[in-house]
Amino acid sequence: MLKNDTLIRALLRQPTPYTPVWLMRQAGRYLPEYNKTRAQAGSFLELCRNPDLATEVTLQPLARFALDAAIVFSDILTIPDAMGLGLHFADGGGPRFERPLREEVQIRDLVVPEPDRQLRYVLDTVRQVRKALAGSVPVIGFSGSPFTLACYMVEGGGSADFRTLKTMLYRRPDLLHHILDINCRAVIAYLNAQVESGAQAIMVFDTWGGTLGPGEYREYSLAYMRRVVEGLAREHAGERIPIILFTKGGGAWIEDIAASGCDAVGLDWTVDLGAARARVGKRVALQGNLDPAVLLAGPEAVRDRAAAVLAAYGRGNGHVFNLGHGVSQHTPVESVAALVEIVRRLSPQFH
Amino acid sequence: MLKNDTLIRALLRQPTPYTPVWLMRQAGRYLPEYNKTRAQAGSFLELCRNPDLATEVTLQPLARFALDAAIVFSDILTIPDAMGLGLHFADGGGPRFERPLREEVQIRDLVVPEPDRQLRYVLDTVRQVRKALAGSVPVIGFSGSPFTLACYMVEGGGSADFRTLKTMLYRRPDLLHHILDINCRAVIAYLNAQVESGAQAIMVFDTWGGTLGPGEYREYSLAYMRRVVEGLAREHAGERIPIILFTKGGGAWIEDIAASGCDAVGLDWTVDLGAARARVGKRVALQGNLDPAVLLAGPEAVRDRAAAVLAAYGRGNGHVFNLGHGVSQHTPVESVAALVEIVRRLSPQFH
Repeated sequence: MLKNDTLIRALLRQPTPYTPVWLMRQAGRYLPEYNKTRAQAGSFLELCRNPDLATEVTLQPLARFALDAAIVFSDILTIPDAMGLGLHFADGGGPRFERPLREEVQIRDLVVPEPDRQLRYVLDTVRQVRKALAGSVPVIGFSGSPFTLACYMVEGGGSADFRTLKTMLYRRPDLLHHILDINCRAVIAYLNAQVESGAQAIMVFDTWGGTLGPGEYREYSLAYMRRVVEGLAREHAGERIPIILFTKGGGAWIEDIAASGCDAVGLDWTVDLGAARARVGKRVALQGNLDPAVLLAGPEAVRDRAAAVLAAYGRGNGHVFNLGHGVSQHTPVESVAALVEIVRRLSPQFH
Repeated sequence: MLKNDTLIRALLRQPTPYTPVWLMRQAGRYLPEYNKTRAQAGSFLELCRNPDLATEVTLQPLARFALDAAIVFSDILTIPDAMGLGLHFADGGGPRFERPLREEVQIRDLVVPEPDRQLRYVLDTVRQVRKALAGSVPVIGFSGSPFTLACYMVEGGGSADFRTLKTMLYRRPDLLHHILDINCRAVIAYLNAQVESGAQAIMVFDTWGGTLGPGEYREYSLAYMRRVVEGLAREHAGERIPIILFTKGGGAWIEDIAASGCDAVGLDWTVDLGAARARVGKRVALQGNLDPAVLLAGPEAVRDRAAAVLAAYGRGNGHVFNLGHGVSQHTPVESVAALVEIVRRLSPQFH
């Protein structure tokens, strides 16, 4: 039984005494204790692959701040890594794949990984985190969206324009659909395995869907997230498992995202939260949407802007406070402390 | 007198026999003749600063394709360079400033450049291009928006998150407003000087306004573009000078942009052109919005997708065909040829 089920209740748009808060990338480089554990692990990826240390860093922000959820420490690209593409991180840079999908034969050879065998380290971390939390707050499981995984798999890493991926999209849509179909089945199996292992809510990160046109977004990103939502266990051990979909830059399409069957929609900071609620708030909960750059400006700015986010959502249920993107590594710890404190202090008046 | 005034008429929502087309960065590295001239100049910046060679590259795409406008070859960051920040380009990388605005004293010392003296090379290019075109098509003048200039001036270059700029925005909005006020006055003087020198339409590129939240966009980007629109000569030598505002990632705010007093709004490819027209098409012309990545996929994809853009806008006046962002250096020349040809061939049926 959860002692603090505020997150779950808010995601299901049930009454809560205050607005729950957690932060994307809440366990990360802005925390000195994280950097210590990461150094001990050797690298980011070794940290992800070590369930003891991954559990340790998952819990670190909860020891400092009154957060309403833990999110399992992992990477959004574990699935293509398990497919054999060879995930690695350049020094200080973003993710890269050693063997990006450039030839049709590689694409035709893709196989859905078996979570219990090939992604067991993530499931072990979920189990250990769940056990260590002992019901204090829920643990969130997650994956990259089928489209966002495909972006990295085809491009080989991050990109300003994802031109390799987009060339495939416009020239060989059949190949891209094949990758997305495999990714979709992999994401479903992986997320269901996380739920079986103890994850109490699920979030799908669609980091790059917002780089598409509206028609392409529906066809290449949202359609596959909808299949993911349909394929996920919505209950486990008698508890509802809420699902959050987050498309960065997807503010124009939240009606469509809300119609996917998900429980909550994540919003980046370019969207007015009050306007978004008016558009879809009868259908789904909303998660977000403070600009993570506000945290760089220090506690005073944080208090003003966090209050503005709460006021923008307004009175009533269905809001999960979060940033519009992950916590920057340059964030002062005291800004995060101020944020969590102010949300907890100001939000009861909205409930 | 213009022999082909299709662009001007479309920007003013007057009847035209077909949909005019030009492309952002139509003179650029995808053209072999451009690379030759650039090599002759020595560097991109030396090319910008040499009116003879800048005129030559401005005209190059018009020799190949039946484009309906020339855009003066220059950079969006000429103004801060003239302010003394020291523009340069890292090898193969984006723009950098040697002396970004980091200290309050630097910001207080900023002075609006005198176009006739400090940006004369651009005005000379405008004059030469206008003369060389001999009325065949209009020449477009341009500048970065006050906010986009400030992004580079404070950050020192491009950025994934513009965290230096945003820290200033959230912590010292007074300083940022001071920079924006100076930039705004500089942009007005510069663009009016371009009109005096022969520019027949004006475009303001707000590349980074879309990284802001809705309230911040209005306060820090749009408010200053509105002042620019108010400060520009709308007629010169008896001719209307249409003004295009383009905020990349600004699709959510086009009603506000359209209310600025501009004649046309540029759209990136994440916006449905038909929906945008329904929102603001009675007020302004719309320019855009093919995904530049379509050009990478070759002529067949170009034909399909260009037809879809024309159909999305639909019948009637007020559409200027363009990309949603600049032409990529990796674009095959034959894709551009196919694009211009198909727009010219298909668009008369919409008029």
